[in-house]
Amino acid sequence: MGDDAEKIASALQEISSCADICLVTGGLGPTSDDVTALACSRAGGVALETDQDALCSMKAYFRKNGYEWTVDNEKQAMLPVGSHMMVNHNGTAPGFYIRMNLCLFFFMPGVPAEMKMMLEREVRPVLVQKFGRDHDILIERLTVFGLPESRAGFLLKGFHDAFPGLRLGFRTDFPVIEVKIILAHPSREKEAAALKIQKARDWVMARLKNRVVSEKGLTLAGEVGRLLAFQKKTLAVAESCTGGLISSLITDVAGSSDYFLFSGVTYSNDAKINILNVREKTLLDHGAVHEETAREMAEGVRLKAGADFGISTTGIAGPGGGTHEKPVGMVCIGLAGEGFSTAKTYRFSFDTRAMNKKIFAMTALERLRRHLTGVPETP
Amino acid sequence: MGDDAEKIASALQEISSCADICLVTGGLGPTSDDVTALACSRAGGVALETDQDALCSMKAYFRKNGYEWTVDNEKQAMLPVGSHMMVNHNGTAPGFYIRMNLCLFFFMPGVPAEMKMMLEREVRPVLVQKFGRDHDILIERLTVFGLPESRAGFLLKGFHDAFPGLRLGFRTDFPVIEVKIILAHPSREKEAAALKIQKARDWVMARLKNRVVSEKGLTLAGEVGRLLAFQKKTLAVAESCTGGLISSLITDVAGSSDYFLFSGVTYSNDAKINILNVREKTLLDHGAVHEETAREMAEGVRLKAGADFGISTTGIAGPGGGTHEKPVGMVCIGLAGEGFSTAKTYRFSFDTRAMNKKIFAMTALERLRRHLTGVPETP
Repeated sequence: MGDDAEKIASALQEISSCADICLVTGGLGPTSDDVTALACSRAGGVALETDQDALCSMKAYFRKNGYEWTVDNEKQAMLPVGSHMMVNHNGTAPGFYIRMNLCLFFFMPGVPAEMKMMLEREVRPVLVQKFGRDHDILIERLTVFGLPESRAGFLLKGFHDAFPGLRLGFRTDFPVIEVKIILAHPSREKEAAALKIQKARDWVMARLKNRVVSEKGLTLAGEVGRLLAFQKKTLAVAESCTGGLISSLITDVAGSSDYFLFSGVTYSNDAKINILNVREKTLLDHGAVHEETAREMAEGVRLKAGADFGISTTGIAGPGGGTHEKPVGMVCIGLAGEGFSTAKTYRFSFDTRAMNKKIFAMTALERLRRHLTGVPETP
Repeated sequence: MGDDAEKIASALQEISSCADICLVTGGLGPTSDDVTALACSRAGGVALETDQDALCSMKAYFRKNGYEWTVDNEKQAMLPVGSHMMVNHNGTAPGFYIRMNLCLFFFMPGVPAEMKMMLEREVRPVLVQKFGRDHDILIERLTVFGLPESRAGFLLKGFHDAFPGLRLGFRTDFPVIEVKIILAHPSREKEAAALKIQKARDWVMARLKNRVVSEKGLTLAGEVGRLLAFQKKTLAVAESCTGGLISSLITDVAGSSDYFLFSGVTYSNDAKINILNVREKTLLDHGAVHEETAREMAEGVRLKAGADFGISTTGIAGPGGGTHEKPVGMVCIGLAGEGFSTAKTYRFSFDTRAMNKKIFAMTALERLRRHLTGVPETP
């Protein structure tokens, strides 16, 4: 919906006569285009009034973050009469819920992190309390890398015949797919359900095999981190074309300082030579994008940081810089450990710099994951 | 909508009798939960048939990317009879459009990058052709950093009175706000409209002042890059708590190799000492999270890489590792250039590691941007 209070109000009214529950997001901010509370008050035919709980909770959040309080923020504490305030744990705009006609409306902020936390902590308990819960949902999440969604779907053909009542869901967060196995079951049949989903998971695993990066829904970087921590090994990274993305993915994982020592993002040749000890001759003979350069980068950063493993990337993320011989989408990935150092070339043809950076970074992490688990490398 | 062909079909039917245009996204994939084309065929009462254009375009995409063709992909080329195929420039699933009753339906894939490109290249031309275009929309985009949305809204109060007919939009992509000034105008009044929006932009700029990072809608890293390239200066980065995120943001910008030389992501103290020449005594006396450490990191990386500028971060991203004196959310940011090196401490209290990494990285880039433009630092 656009930011038009009349249109929103009439949509709310329509919904109020046909749905039991309605989740609304967005339009709770302090600015003039935030009109959701106003629309709700019109739809319900009630006034807006300052909610003291909302005011207190907002002021506390502002104090905590050292924000300056403006009169506009008071607007955010104006809620429709008869509504119940919901705390925003992650931002300023309080939410609220209110019954209109048949329907229980939940109004949440639009910022995803704020909405998610409010849904979990505020909306869910109200729903459970009001509607009870005689069913539970079991979900198994498998992180899959190295297959397009169509190929994964093909490999899992027959699932619904083999496991009636269970459902498969696919979500692509390029270049990773999350495969979800979903089972809704009566709450009293917990054990039977656990057994059923376990069987389904084994069936899926037997088909996706080594493409499953994590059976616990971890990210690829999270799984690599888990393996390094478990094996008490440390890692150093040398990045050229991925420009810090590998390091950032690794350090998104809390506790990564236990195994991650150093990353050298060496965009210039000088940095490759001076910091990673890549031989000048290698760069002169082969250029920056070459397996030998990648190998020396991985080995160099490993020694420099005193790490157990080194991984490296050098390639062409585009959009410029490609040649016939070394096109955009080509990347050399190095891997070094105690007594060995190798490099491999991969060629992708995705359309954007951002996609190339991601697939390069993930492929480097996957090389290391396969090494750490003794799984053969991708062809 | 869920993945239920019957429910989708009945929603499409309802829409077909009340709307002129309907944009549908998602459910065009090859897997069993992708049922949008089927739902459309039921809603329209037409069969699904293999579309030869769709088949050719998909096969070309598969060849280009070296993907393996599976029989499931054939399903994706099955379109409702009477529909027109739309090319997916960014993925496998073709889209299509079809008229049902009053309404022209456009079916696009759900993956954002694929949807956006199809909307721009395939849907838009059809809409312009079918509905004509006697109005244009002018949009000015300002990238704003360092203000919560409520404060920006407060500062821009009065906009709608001063500029009737223009609209302000706010979009938060934490921790950055995009402020949009929007003007829809008759196509023949181009010049008057340009003048009008220019005035509105000046009005907004006079109120948001230095918080406006880019008047062209560039990212903060993009603007820093533009300034560095324009001033023919180079940059090196030393990252601790941001773990490579600054580098990754900088290298998201095409052409960043012109000014970005090196980043040392030094998670371990050894790496700070050996690679950035931070003094061991500094770390012993003050610890890793301290202004003196940040200053030496910025200065060290600048000298190491032979860059004009060095920036650095060291802080506590959380969730663990905080103390009373150095709590989660505290960061020291160093900035060094020819003849100077400084550091400043900032304290934030956002709730997640990811948010802390982002605000730390952006604050470091903002310190450099303000230095490059001669703007005073934030208080």
